[in-house]
Amino acid sequence: MSSPERAFVTAHLEDLHADLDAWLRIPSISADPAHAPSVAASAEWLADALRRTGFPTVEIWPTPGAPAVFAEWRSADPDAPVALVYGHHDVQPVDPVELWEHPPFEPAVIDGPDGPELHARGAIDDKGNVAMHLLGMRAHLAATGRDTPAVTVKLLIEGEEESGSPHFADLLRARADRLACDVVVVSDTGMAGPDVPSAVVAMRGLADAEITLRGPAVDLHSGSFGGGVPNPLHAMATLLAALHDEQGRVTLPGFYDRVRPLSDRERALMARVPFDEAAWLAGPAASRAATGEAGFSTLERIGARPTAEVNGVWGGYTGPGHKTIIPAEAHAKVTFRLVADQRPADLAEQVRAWVAAHTPEGIEAHVHVPAGGVSPCASDLDSPAMAALLAAIGQAFDTDPADVLFTREGGSGPEADLVDVLGAPLVFLGAGLPTDRIHSPNERVLLPMLYRGAEAAAHLWRELAAVPFPAR
Amino acid sequence: MSSPERAFVTAHLEDLHADLDAWLRIPSISADPAHAPSVAASAEWLADALRRTGFPTVEIWPTPGAPAVFAEWRSADPDAPVALVYGHHDVQPVDPVELWEHPPFEPAVIDGPDGPELHARGAIDDKGNVAMHLLGMRAHLAATGRDTPAVTVKLLIEGEEESGSPHFADLLRARADRLACDVVVVSDTGMAGPDVPSAVVAMRGLADAEITLRGPAVDLHSGSFGGGVPNPLHAMATLLAALHDEQGRVTLPGFYDRVRPLSDRERALMARVPFDEAAWLAGPAASRAATGEAGFSTLERIGARPTAEVNGVWGGYTGPGHKTIIPAEAHAKVTFRLVADQRPADLAEQVRAWVAAHTPEGIEAHVHVPAGGVSPCASDLDSPAMAALLAAIGQAFDTDPADVLFTREGGSGPEADLVDVLGAPLVFLGAGLPTDRIHSPNERVLLPMLYRGAEAAAHLWRELAAVPFPAR
Repeated sequence: MSSPERAFVTAHLEDLHADLDAWLRIPSISADPAHAPSVAASAEWLADALRRTGFPTVEIWPTPGAPAVFAEWRSADPDAPVALVYGHHDVQPVDPVELWEHPPFEPAVIDGPDGPELHARGAIDDKGNVAMHLLGMRAHLAATGRDTPAVTVKLLIEGEEESGSPHFADLLRARADRLACDVVVVSDTGMAGPDVPSAVVAMRGLADAEITLRGPAVDLHSGSFGGGVPNPLHAMATLLAALHDEQGRVTLPGFYDRVRPLSDRERALMARVPFDEAAWLAGPAASRAATGEAGFSTLERIGARPTAEVNGVWGGYTGPGHKTIIPAEAHAKVTFRLVADQRPADLAEQVRAWVAAHTPEGIEAHVHVPAGGVSPCASDLDSPAMAALLAAIGQAFDTDPADVLFTREGGSGPEADLVDVLGAPLVFLGAGLPTDRIHSPNERVLLPMLYRGAEAAAHLWRELAAVPFPAR
Repeated sequence: MSSPERAFVTAHLEDLHADLDAWLRIPSISADPAHAPSVAASAEWLADALRRTGFPTVEIWPTPGAPAVFAEWRSADPDAPVALVYGHHDVQPVDPVELWEHPPFEPAVIDGPDGPELHARGAIDDKGNVAMHLLGMRAHLAATGRDTPAVTVKLLIEGEEESGSPHFADLLRARADRLACDVVVVSDTGMAGPDVPSAVVAMRGLADAEITLRGPAVDLHSGSFGGGVPNPLHAMATLLAALHDEQGRVTLPGFYDRVRPLSDRERALMARVPFDEAAWLAGPAASRAATGEAGFSTLERIGARPTAEVNGVWGGYTGPGHKTIIPAEAHAKVTFRLVADQRPADLAEQVRAWVAAHTPEGIEAHVHVPAGGVSPCASDLDSPAMAALLAAIGQAFDTDPADVLFTREGGSGPEADLVDVLGAPLVFLGAGLPTDRIHSPNERVLLPMLYRGAEAAAHLWRELAAVPFPAR
């Protein structure tokens, strides 16, 4: 299914490769304050590249943390829809650096089984996903013979995503007028496989709680008190053991009340996504067994169902040998992944009620649930914007749009803030693969995926121009 | 019930006070290597004091750690029984030192509701309990008009009890010939109250285990894997929650098989011990409720029944904020208090069987149970040696021997090694009180208890001379 967009992309693959090679050499690790100059340099590099691409408006927006890059290219058509691309230019730390086969900030091209791979920190997460829009925009203009894009395209590329986007919601609120849009195109995800064009249609939300159980006023001698007074570590074990029932369901009262049930159609669509469970278990983060909520597949459990995970527990003596104490306190950190239409703000009461129901006499419980959290988000599978996305992906991957699969992202990010503050729906266009080792040593991008992603972006601007978005 | 022993003790109270005052000024903290010279000085002081008292044989026995003091005063009667006094001359650390009302190594006499108290680290644990034997021996000789004691008296006063007596069993084995005896008099405990003469008749044993549960090969992202693979912290919580059943009984298979049941007589004797549970809960180590094994009193639970306590748990992320991981590992430390006739060596198999029964698919368990442990020990309530002890305590406290109560020590110490290596029965003569704040700031001894203890020791040597011990 040749197209002018593909012809342009194919003729300019080296431009995308060269852009990415230069950008990936900037170690923009936002979690490390020592790298703050590199994060700033990364923003400057991107701003220059956007200007070079032709964006008339390019600005670096400072935050109390790392700077974001904003760009805008208005369509000559005053009634054209407005699309906002979201991505980030910061990257994860590189530890353990000794496990990298090539230095993480010296991009290397490797011939892999599915084609050439570019290895570097940030290769796909998220510099690759952002850089494909540079070539994509040029392809869109060249293919359509336009001086301005068919839709007004804005980009907001933040610099703190890998640090939890601490200033992102404030930035959105402060710049809401400039960011106003009809649809957000999130480019920070990927597809189900190199031959499996797909679109993310949901992300899970997040809430976290810290629980402290207090027993005796001080650590007690277990010879003098052992067997006679409550032990906070016993109480914590009993509490956490009761976090799931025998069906693997979370036992917080009301936890499932607002969960939107998976429709038969959604489950059927998920079942079409190829997923090699054995390979997933044996993958980079090897686990020994699959488990989880009864009645759901692993893909549903990790993407479409809410979960509770204990992330840390501590209390008492943890040094060498033994110390015969009943500790005064026990502590646990728990996070919850939420799905539509759960609300992070509901968790505080649910956690408190659950803890209270499992706290024995003689133990005092303290629950801390920070305000905020991350809302879950989900795309409307039947919206015209989704149809435009599927058409664009279908053209880039030579696939019928009806055969583009839907996937769900189990993680949580600032995407929900975009929905909350800007009030626009999300679609996801990303060129990553589950095997790209994001956040791990030897992160890579499969270059053919990136080229198809650039082409899909070019198609998307054309397709979106015809979408009848409601008035803002 | 006046006696020549009491007359002598009463005439020489100041000697005991002066001895103790001098000895308590030596900060013999065995846990702190910087105090090793003080521990050595403490041994030297005691050796001098024993020589001054008249012991013909006084030796300092080095160990790979702190030195022990050995003394022997043979009876002129070649057929006289041999008694070995056990105690220790090292003391606990003094932290938090700011909570002391008087400097811990500057003994201060305070008028208390039950008489004069001497406040200092080691005042009762264990320098007071050892020093009372200096005056006790002089009183015995003076009261009976003898040049040598009625029984051969040996003392073994170790210097590492507060550090877990790491070299004590080896010392006993190496010096078993010199230490041969018919009965061991343990002077490192106390009585139920200032007006409640009593004798400890059992100590609990100890075994410890460290449990590691491993899940994924590395910490996993809970957004990508949460809800789909086993979480070692969930498995640890479930395991530890199953350590006790709903009756508060330990669930290790076979744990109770060798537990000697409490006889009706033993339970009746324990019930006679005055115990203010509310005061105990509100005491220095305040706890909010009593709990434990169903069907037993608090005194039975903490002294006469075996227990399991989780002393420490750790795993995953324990820093500020949250980190959304499924941790690779979870860890727990558990100790078990044992009663006659449980054997520490049986615990390894019991813990392994228990862990195996509660380890879910996908989790790998590793159990470490160190060899050794501490055996429980118990005195024969009806032995002639016990009758001699009760007679001695009865005389010192103006109480009918039948009214001297029996108590049980919930803790564990090297006393079991004395039984194991020397093959002699134990009796316990100590002048401490539950309110003496041992191991805590403002440790004290009630001086009238110490004077009565010295008198009881004097009576004991006379009473033991008549005991028909079996041939060694």
